Amino acid sequence: MTCSEFDLIRHFFTRQSIQRADVPLGIGDDAALLAPPAGHLLAVSVDTLIAGVHFPLDTAARAVGYKSLAVNLSDLAAMGAEPAWVTLALSLPEPDEAWLTGFAQGFFDLANTHSVQLVGGDTTRGPLSITVQVTGFVSQERALLRNGAQPGDGIFVTGTVGDAGLGLRLYQQPSDANSDTTMQLIHRLEFPTPRIAAGLALRGRASSAIDVSDGLAADLGHVLMASGVGADIHVDQLPLSLAYRSLAPENDWQVAVSAGDDYELCFTLPAGQEVAALAGLDCTCTRIGEISASPGLRWWDANDQQLTLQNTGFDHFTCSQQGKGKPQ
Amino acid sequence: MTCSEFDLIRHFFTRQSIQRADVPLGIGDDAALLAPPAGHLLAVSVDTLIAGVHFPLDTAARAVGYKSLAVNLSDLAAMGAEPAWVTLALSLPEPDEAWLTGFAQGFFDLANTHSVQLVGGDTTRGPLSITVQVTGFVSQERALLRNGAQPGDGIFVTGTVGDAGLGLRLYQQPSDANSDTTMQLIHRLEFPTPRIAAGLALRGRASSAIDVSDGLAADLGHVLMASGVGADIHVDQLPLSLAYRSLAPENDWQVAVSAGDDYELCFTLPAGQEVAALAGLDCTCTRIGEISASPGLRWWDANDQQLTLQNTGFDHFTCSQQGKGKPQ
Repeated sequence: MTCSEFDLIRHFFTRQSIQRADVPLGIGDDAALLAPPAGHLLAVSVDTLIAGVHFPLDTAARAVGYKSLAVNLSDLAAMGAEPAWVTLALSLPEPDEAWLTGFAQGFFDLANTHSVQLVGGDTTRGPLSITVQVTGFVSQERALLRNGAQPGDGIFVTGTVGDAGLGLRLYQQPSDANSDTTMQLIHRLEFPTPRIAAGLALRGRASSAIDVSDGLAADLGHVLMASGVGADIHVDQLPLSLAYRSLAPENDWQVAVSAGDDYELCFTLPAGQEVAALAGLDCTCTRIGEISASPGLRWWDANDQQLTLQNTGFDHFTCSQQGKGKPQ
Repeated sequence: MTCSEFDLIRHFFTRQSIQRADVPLGIGDDAALLAPPAGHLLAVSVDTLIAGVHFPLDTAARAVGYKSLAVNLSDLAAMGAEPAWVTLALSLPEPDEAWLTGFAQGFFDLANTHSVQLVGGDTTRGPLSITVQVTGFVSQERALLRNGAQPGDGIFVTGTVGDAGLGLRLYQQPSDANSDTTMQLIHRLEFPTPRIAAGLALRGRASSAIDVSDGLAADLGHVLMASGVGADIHVDQLPLSLAYRSLAPENDWQVAVSAGDDYELCFTLPAGQEVAALAGLDCTCTRIGEISASPGLRWWDANDQQLTLQNTGFDHFTCSQQGKGKPQ
């Protein structure tokens, strides 16, 4: 590999179509120059995806490019922030044109959807690894934090949970048939939808929010810890997709709340906000329980019998992904 | 390795003493919330260092922590920006407490020196790799860019050049004696000084600036290209340290302008700005040549004989470091 070969990589990252007015100087100098909007805070999130750790080695390049941005946008969604700028630090063993074409396509398709501009980066030779940092805008008064849940608030989750976790298992242990249903779940693993519009709609309404990256049980646990409250969840209310229901093992609800990579939003609403907040969402949303003053996270069936969340043996692809690995 | 072991890593990154007033929410939620100052632009730089690519595998942890921040601060210095916030994406094979202690010491010693707060990050399991992103503040009118050099401007460089490059060779090919002089050069390689104060002092005065990461010849070349000008350099004026002079091979000036990792500032000053600008610097600074309307980079000896810059065979430790590898 020569320097000039590596220089070619640059061309893959100058093809973006987004040119924001708040980027007076983009890629090309010692640093980018960015113009933050007056009266707003910046919301900043950074995540690393490593081949063989955060995604299977043979994941399609387009999925890697898409997901490396999606997981960060999901963090901004959970803050109620409007995404604006992104940087990309890409380490790869060699400049593989086909791989880079796919990666750039997945990355920029999603960036363009959300009017996000790539403003800087670094490309290095090394084991395949992607670190993405996104910056968004949010007003201090309306930002969605983890620590505002109050007893009596309803607990909600967007979309469905468990699809990505089940998709990972199906990916790792392929059965005799790669059915449409299987592919549907694997697609949810590889192309999660960051809930940007939902996060924006919940600003000033939700009392807390988090994105579901480590699994609903773990992430709701972070909210309860930060807010100093407990919760009761009705497992018959959990939003499970038809694909999930048809392929999940017997104790299906446990897998759905333990597996990660959903990138749905889990949030809480004061009773008086429920109707107005839910009317403003662009996606399905399900009420799954209530915040309680009594500490702990409890699970209940349709007959009000308490259930125990087992260790499902449903390990995430890594223990160090997302929130868990952050130096908090 | 378990999740809980990895959680321990967090503690190494909560020991920072800097708590800036413009960080309403630091590490611990889905994203950090930052309050940019009114009337300023943000200057943003990101760089990745990979073990075995950007630094020798047996480099001391403290040096790795220091340098991963220093190379980014150097980019801000070259923009005339005042550093404020930093994020750290750290990938490492296992949670090695001794290594983490050293890394954090090197990182935070430098961060504290410049009142920079760690506001976010991600810790993952994988090959040793560090991606750091720094954000600083600068006014649009006073930012130092690469494209403002004009014919007749003087060309200057802070400190001395070539020490780090020679230090790398001595590190890789240890001689019989690890003399004080050798150690001095290796120290310059491992602990480069980001010229923050000099960059701030040059705001509104220098017509262009860049930091010397790829070697003076290559980096000055970037300025000439961006500004559409040429340059004449007097090699007898190059600032070479005593340590460098005593250990450099015969064609010493060529090595000094080809080797990278100096992290000095190279900048240009209009004639009328030279006295005032140089009086404001906190470090030694040397005039090495002039900008010319004639394209190209020319080298001259003390007798005004033109010299040819050979391929010195002085490869950088990597070809993909810093500017060269950026997706520009």
